[in-house]
Parts: sequence; C-alpha cells; structure tokens
Amino acid sequence: MLAFTETPAAMSTATPTYDTLAGTWGRLHRLGHLQSIAGWDQAANMPPKANEARAAAMAEMAALLHRMVTDPALPGQLERAEQEPLDDWQRANLREMHRQWHLSNALPESLVQRMRMATARCEHAWRQQRPANDWAGFLANFREVLALAREEAALLSQQTGLSKYDAMMDRFEPGMTSAQLDRVFGEVRQWLPGLIQRVLAHQAARPAVDPVGPFPLAAQRALCEKVVRLLGFDFDAGRLDVSTHPFCGGVPEDVRMTTRFRDDEFLSSLMGTIHETGHGRYEQNLPRDWLGQPVAEARSAALHESQSLSFEMQLGSHPGFVNRLAPLVREAFGDQPAFAAQNLHRLLTRVKPGFIRVDADEVTYPAHIILRYEIERPLIEGEIEPEDIPALWDARMSELLGVDTRGNFKDGPLQDVHWPEALFGYFPCYSLGAMYAGQWFAAMRRTMPDLDARIGAGDLAPVFGWLRDNIWSQASRWTTDELARRASGEPLNPAHFKAHLETRYLGD
Amino acid sequence: MLAFTETPAAMSTATPTYDTLAGTWGRLHRLGHLQSIAGWDQAANMPPKANEARAAAMAEMAALLHRMVTDPALPGQLERAEQEPLDDWQRANLREMHRQWHLSNALPESLVQRMRMATARCEHAWRQQRPANDWAGFLANFREVLALAREEAALLSQQTGLSKYDAMMDRFEPGMTSAQLDRVFGEVRQWLPGLIQRVLAHQAARPAVDPVGPFPLAAQRALCEKVVRLLGFDFDAGRLDVSTHPFCGGVPEDVRMTTRFRDDEFLSSLMGTIHETGHGRYEQNLPRDWLGQPVAEARSAALHESQSLSFEMQLGSHPGFVNRLAPLVREAFGDQPAFAAQNLHRLLTRVKPGFIRVDADEVTYPAHIILRYEIERPLIEGEIEPEDIPALWDARMSELLGVDTRGNFKDGPLQDVHWPEALFGYFPCYSLGAMYAGQWFAAMRRTMPDLDARIGAGDLAPVFGWLRDNIWSQASRWTTDELARRASGEPLNPAHFKAHLETRYLGD
Repeated sequence: MLAFTETPAAMSTATPTYDTLAGTWGRLHRLGHLQSIAGWDQAANMPPKANEARAAAMAEMAALLHRMVTDPALPGQLERAEQEPLDDWQRANLREMHRQWHLSNALPESLVQRMRMATARCEHAWRQQRPANDWAGFLANFREVLALAREEAALLSQQTGLSKYDAMMDRFEPGMTSAQLDRVFGEVRQWLPGLIQRVLAHQAARPAVDPVGPFPLAAQRALCEKVVRLLGFDFDAGRLDVSTHPFCGGVPEDVRMTTRFRDDEFLSSLMGTIHETGHGRYEQNLPRDWLGQPVAEARSAALHESQSLSFEMQLGSHPGFVNRLAPLVREAFGDQPAFAAQNLHRLLTRVKPGFIRVDADEVTYPAHIILRYEIERPLIEGEIEPEDIPALWDARMSELLGVDTRGNFKDGPLQDVHWPEALFGYFPCYSLGAMYAGQWFAAMRRTMPDLDARIGAGDLAPVFGWLRDNIWSQASRWTTDELARRASGEPLNPAHFKAHLETRYLGD
Repeated sequence: MLAFTETPAAMSTATPTYDTLAGTWGRLHRLGHLQSIAGWDQAANMPPKANEARAAAMAEMAALLHRMVTDPALPGQLERAEQEPLDDWQRANLREMHRQWHLSNALPESLVQRMRMATARCEHAWRQQRPANDWAGFLANFREVLALAREEAALLSQQTGLSKYDAMMDRFEPGMTSAQLDRVFGEVRQWLPGLIQRVLAHQAARPAVDPVGPFPLAAQRALCEKVVRLLGFDFDAGRLDVSTHPFCGGVPEDVRMTTRFRDDEFLSSLMGTIHETGHGRYEQNLPRDWLGQPVAEARSAALHESQSLSFEMQLGSHPGFVNRLAPLVREAFGDQPAFAAQNLHRLLTRVKPGFIRVDADEVTYPAHIILRYEIERPLIEGEIEPEDIPALWDARMSELLGVDTRGNFKDGPLQDVHWPEALFGYFPCYSLGAMYAGQWFAAMRRTMPDLDARIGAGDLAPVFGWLRDNIWSQASRWTTDELARRASGEPLNPAHFKAHLETRYLGD
C-alpha cells in the first residue's frame, strides 16, 4: 500500500477530495506534533513560572486545531470523498476522519467553553478538598460539572442515537455500549468477590518477603531503561523521563514515556514503566505508511490499555518473565532475600482489597471499575444525583471488596481526577483493557502452545510479533469488535481474563 | 503602563485597529512559543529517528506563522493604526510590527523556497567538505547560495533604499550601515595588530599553569548551575541542558539555555554557560507587561551579544569575579595549582592568534570579524566573486593576525556555517556586541566609580541593576542608537572596547 504523500504528483486524479482531506489531516498531525511535545515538556521539563504562558500557547493551538476540524468545508468534502473510488484503508481512513469531525463538531463552542471553566474550577478546588475530606465543598462545584456533562450527553445522544452515557463513552471507546458493559461487568460481578476470597486464602499460605530499601534513583533508572530495552522499545525513536504522573505522550515518531521514582520502593516504578512501555510500543509500531492519518491512530482507549496491561500484567508479572527480571534487580540493588524470583513474583501478584483504584492489584481492580461504572452511568442518565454517590460507593465497596469506606470521602469518591474533569465514560476502558489483554494472550497460546515456555526462556519475540501483526499494525483499520474477531476469533470475552486470574492467582 | 490583554473590555475604543494588530501578534507569540520549545527539544532531547517528523511539523508551523504575517489585511491595518492616538510604547510597538511585517513580506515565496533548498544543499554538503578541505566542491554549491543572496539583497535594497549589504545586515542589526562599520572597523584595524603584539609580549612574562583533568561531568554541571544562579538566572523560569551546539532558546517566560561538556576541559564549557546566561537574563527580564508584542523583543543581534559578552567577558573574566569563581572551581574538582585565582584569570585572558573564530580570545576575535566583513560585503555588492575569497582570506589573516592559512580551507573560509546558510550581514554583530559591552561597563563605571571594587567584593547587583534599567527593560522601545545614547550618553563608540582591552590585557 502506498503512503499518503503531499506531493501533488502522488495524488490520484480519481480521488481529489479524499486527497484534500488527507492533506488537511496531515496538517493537523504535524501541528498536533508540536502540541504533543509541548504537553510532554510541560509535564517533564517546564519550570513552574512558565505555566501561564505555556497554557496560553497550548490553548491557542487547541483553538487553531479546533478551527481546522470545524472548517465548514469539511462536511461537503467528507460526503464527496465517499463517492470516490477508495481502497479499504482509504475507506477506513475516511470513516475515522468522519468520526473525528463529528467529535469536534458535536458540541457548541459555548458549551465547550463553559465546561472548560467548570472543570478547571472543580479540579482546582478538588486538589485541596480531597486531602481535607471535604465532600460538601466538592459537591458545590461538581454539580455544575455534572449539569454540563448531562447537557453534553443529551446533545451527543441526539446526534448519535445512542443513550446518553453510551454517547459519552463512545468518545473514548467507539462501539462500546452500556448494554454490552452490563453483560460483561454483570458476569465479572458474579465471580469476582468469590475469586478474591479464594485468592486471599491461597496466598495466605505463600508469604512474601519485602524488599529493603533505600533503592538509589540512578540504579532504578538504569534498571528501568534496561527492562524497557528488553521489551523492545526503540530509544532512537523515543525517551523515558520523569514526571509527577507517569504517562506516555509525544507522537508515534517520537514517543515520550515518563515514570517517577521514590527511593524507598522500586517495584511500582518498574511496573509502571513496563506499563507505559506497552503504550509506547503500540505507538511506535502503528503503520508508518499511514502515519498522520486518522486510520493510523490507536484504535481506542481500551485497546491502548490492553497493550499497557499486556506488558505490565500478562507479560511483566508472568513467572517466566519475573525469572528474567530477578537477576536484573539483583544487579541493580545487590542481593537480598526478597529478590529471589519466586518471591518477586509473589510481591508482584500480591492481592489486597483496598480503597484506592490506582494502587489496586490486578484481581481487585475490576471491582473499582464496576463500582464507578455503576455510579457514573445512572449519574449521566439522570437516574441518581451527586448526593447519592457516597451511599452507593459504600454499598458497592462493601459488597465487592468487603471494605468499609463510610465517611472516608478522600479515599472514596474523591480519589480520582476523572469526575472533576468530566471524563465520564472513561473508567470502563481500564477494565476492558485488562480483559482484552487476557484475550490476546489466550489467542497467542492457542496458536503457540509453547508460549509460556518461550517467555520463560527469555524469548519475547512471539508476543511482540503477535501484537504487532494483530493490534499495532492494524491501528484503526477495523472497528474494535472486528479487530478483536480478526485477532482472537471472537469479540470481547471476559472468560479469558477470568481464566488468566485463576491460573495466575490459584494455579501454583 | 498597561499590559496588553485580550479581554475586549480592556481594549480602547480609540485604538481598535491597533488592538486588532496587538491581538494578531499575541497569537503569533503564543504559537511561536510552541515552535521555540520544539526547536529547543530538537536540539536537547529529540531521538534521532524523530528528525523527519519534527522537521515537517516545524515547517508546517513556520508556514502558518508566515501566512499570518503576510495576511493581506495587515498593511491596511498597520496604516490605519498609525492614525490612532497611541502612547509612546504603543507607537514603538507599531514601528516594530511594521518592521516584522516588512521582513516577512519583502521576499517572494518562490525566492524564499529556492533559498531554503540551496542553503540546505550547501550546508549539508559542507559538513563533509569542511573536514575534507574541499573548497572546489563547496564552491559548486555556494555559487548558487550567493546568487540567491544577491537576488535577496537587490530586492531588499530596492525596498529599503539601503545598499545591498546594508539591507541584508538590517535584518539582524536594524540601523547599522556599512558606512558606520567601515568607520568603526577601520579604527579597530589601526590599533588591533599592534595591541595583539603588545599583549603577546606582556603575557609571555606571565605564564599560566594548565588545569589537569579529567573533570567529571556531574561536577562540571553542578559548577555551571551554581555560577548561573550566582549570575541571577531564574531557574524557576528556565533551564540549563546539554546540546551539541550551545544556544539560548525558548521564550522569555521559559528560557532554555544549553551547554556542552567534555571531561578533559572545563573552562570553555563554564565560560560558554556564562555567555548563554547573559542571553538568558536579557530574555528573562524583557518587559513583562508587553511580552508577546514586538516592542518587548530583544533590540537586535548585537545588543543580544552585548549581553552575553557583558556576562562572559566583562564580568566573567573580571579579576574580581574570577576571585569568586576560584573557590567554586576548587570545590567542584579539588585543589590544584591551576585553580589559584590569579592563574585562573591568566587562563581566561590568554591571547593566542589562531585560525578559528569560535576558539578565539577576546583580543583577536575582532580580527576574525573584520576579515569576514571585508569579504562578505563586497561579495554581496558583487564587487568580488567566490573564487576571490581564499586569496583575500590569506592576505587578511596574515595582515591582522600574522597567521598563514594558505591551502587550509577547512580552518579558513570553510570554518563557519554562516555563509553556507546565507546569513550574510550577521558576522559584524558579534564584534559590535563586544564593543557595546565595553561601552556599557564604561558607562557603569562613570556612574559607579566603585564598580570594580564591588564586583571584587561579590556584589553583582549594580551590574544587573544597570543592565536591567538600561537594556533589558527597554527591549525594542528605542532604535539601537537611541538606546545606546540613553544608556551610555553616546552612540556606539569602540574606544571603550579598546580601553577595556588595554586595561585588562596590559594593565597588570
């Protein structure tokens, strides 16, 4: 397949409108490149006093990009391009252009503006309200955010024909619906509390020794870089730096991952880095011939998370991989009892029901997500009000994790930034990603029955090859369902995730 | 004075067109911010494989910024704004807008495009031709660059009424003419060769001990940061990083300086860092109320260089400052005979006629500039041809520095990137900067007779205060001549530079 290029000579006379659109999106990509690098810089490098100027610069660029995607010429061009003789990739590209156009044009600028102000206010105050456990104070701002989110949801629902919550979720996870989520999460709900109890009983007989710090930052950084290389990340086309909140940014041609270090603990930083490496390799291996076009972008939030979790959970906590990790850990920090491979594996798979989602282990994590989904969906649909959140939160935490959160707002509904920022519909993607990751590895094992032995022997190529062929190189070529079917023979099926948890947490 | 703000409420009804223009330049500033940071990132961080995508992104932005400044609405707006009741700062701002508009609109896009390709080709080949001493190969490309530069110069000359070379120089150093340069450089030419000989004789009796390496990079970095802090750079509004070629970039709100380290030598890195700190403080102290507007930009290339050289030469090699530096050097690398303050000062003021401009000391440096000026001016005016360069180069080097460069093109006319990049008219700014720096310190000493004693006592505040009041805060408020007059009571006067050299290099 031919790359899109800008030279008029390479443009087809049969697809002039499509070519115009591809040119527009090429420009969006190139300008977006600067925005991405500036965003990374803001988190990784920027000195504090530059904040205002940087925010103004990035807002100016955001407005510019928005104007480009809301150019009144686009709808007509998108329609005319539909009539042109396009190949499959071009047609998929046109579908994704249409989707991006729709997302950018769905909401009136005034609503976007009011939302920006409301979320900025809510998020800003939340930073103080959370440590102060100030639920009442939070509610005062959050009501406004929710009111605007409901307006958004109503408009998106009208335009898409989806329910309000589904229309919100569709921004992050196209094609996913609450009907499907209800089924999937409903299933998980059935077996999860029982599984957690069995795992807790199982691991009680398998105590782990804690590592003894301090762990010098330079040694941690060297260890992380070594592991990131081992996982195939191309440092000639990306970087690993430090920021307060780890993320993976930049552009596919220049992937910027970040992590953070503290000297009393190294495992969470290491596993966090492995997590970002999954995101990073997805980005680095998107189809280069199509880079800059929407069809070459990562499929969805859940698919992206399926890559980070394939790396962090499926691979990073795989006993065979941990065997390889152990000598590197000893090399970094010297030997100690905690660094025996079996003990490291126990540390990495330790399950403990707790308050905080981001600290949760692989087994209890879905409970945190289901709980949030069961609150944010009716919240957006107008079936409950913000005042109802604490009681629902307490009930679900007790039911799913056996944890008492009453009165503890700061470790309860105040713990995440998503709601103050109106990111309704995003939470499910985390658990969908974990499920897809389980499904990918189940599919790999079907075609490569010796997969676990090969991972144990240090041969990660089969994993990377499968992910490259089935996920990375496919980008947004297919809908998520179709991608899953082609990759694994079936659409999303949480049974694989369940089997993975049972094997890993009850198998030995 | 009131800051320009974007809120319509703050806009005057009496100056609607001026306000529109200020809005346009505010947008240019904000988008240019992203371009600057991306440019810094390219030099300081970017992994090699990102080069093509980054170049494409920055070219897209350059084209966008160019379109904004060549908007056909601007000339009319600039004219109408002239009629509005503006205060002095606004009027200066309008003058600078007009200048920027003119610079961006002076040349047809096709010429700019051809020049871009010719300089890219010439510069790219030059990287190999210089080490290969391949003058003939260089000429083949350089003829095309020069032909286009002459086209540029002819167009700029027509529009400005300046001579061709003056019109080229005016892009970097507005107001400077070759008539004035001939006078100034003619004077320097008279006393420089004799002064160099006297200095060489003088220092022969004052040998210096060389420092003994290696000098660990971490210690060098810590030393540089300490000195940069001592020099008042605000690390909360800027950074110091590493790049192949040191520079000062970023934006006034976020100044990004770079340096480079090698472990067998530390003084050139330290002094290079002090040099960039001068640029950095100028940028950090431009008038904040006007940031984003042309009037708040640094006055000119020579003025910028006058700041870096005020820091590196006037202050950095000042015996009183070197007294303060010596204990920091010992703290960084341990004690050795070379680190005695007097010896450090001798090292920093060692004069040695040589081939290479960028390695030249403060005394011989002007010879390198006069030589280049005496070649590039007639080259642009069409009085000589590229074939004539080597003979002229040899003659001038022998005459001014007593150095024989015959046949040595790589350390002769092939040594700089300026000509392959068509930066004709830039070289004089380096020496003008050194002269202005001498003039500023002479003016300081007139109003503060105890200046040297205060520097020796570690009190740098009088220097920074004077530079802030007279240079930094004035930005582009005045023409360069007027700025010099207000700051020092006279326009450019190279006698101060001569007196400085005599005092420093013959005085002890």
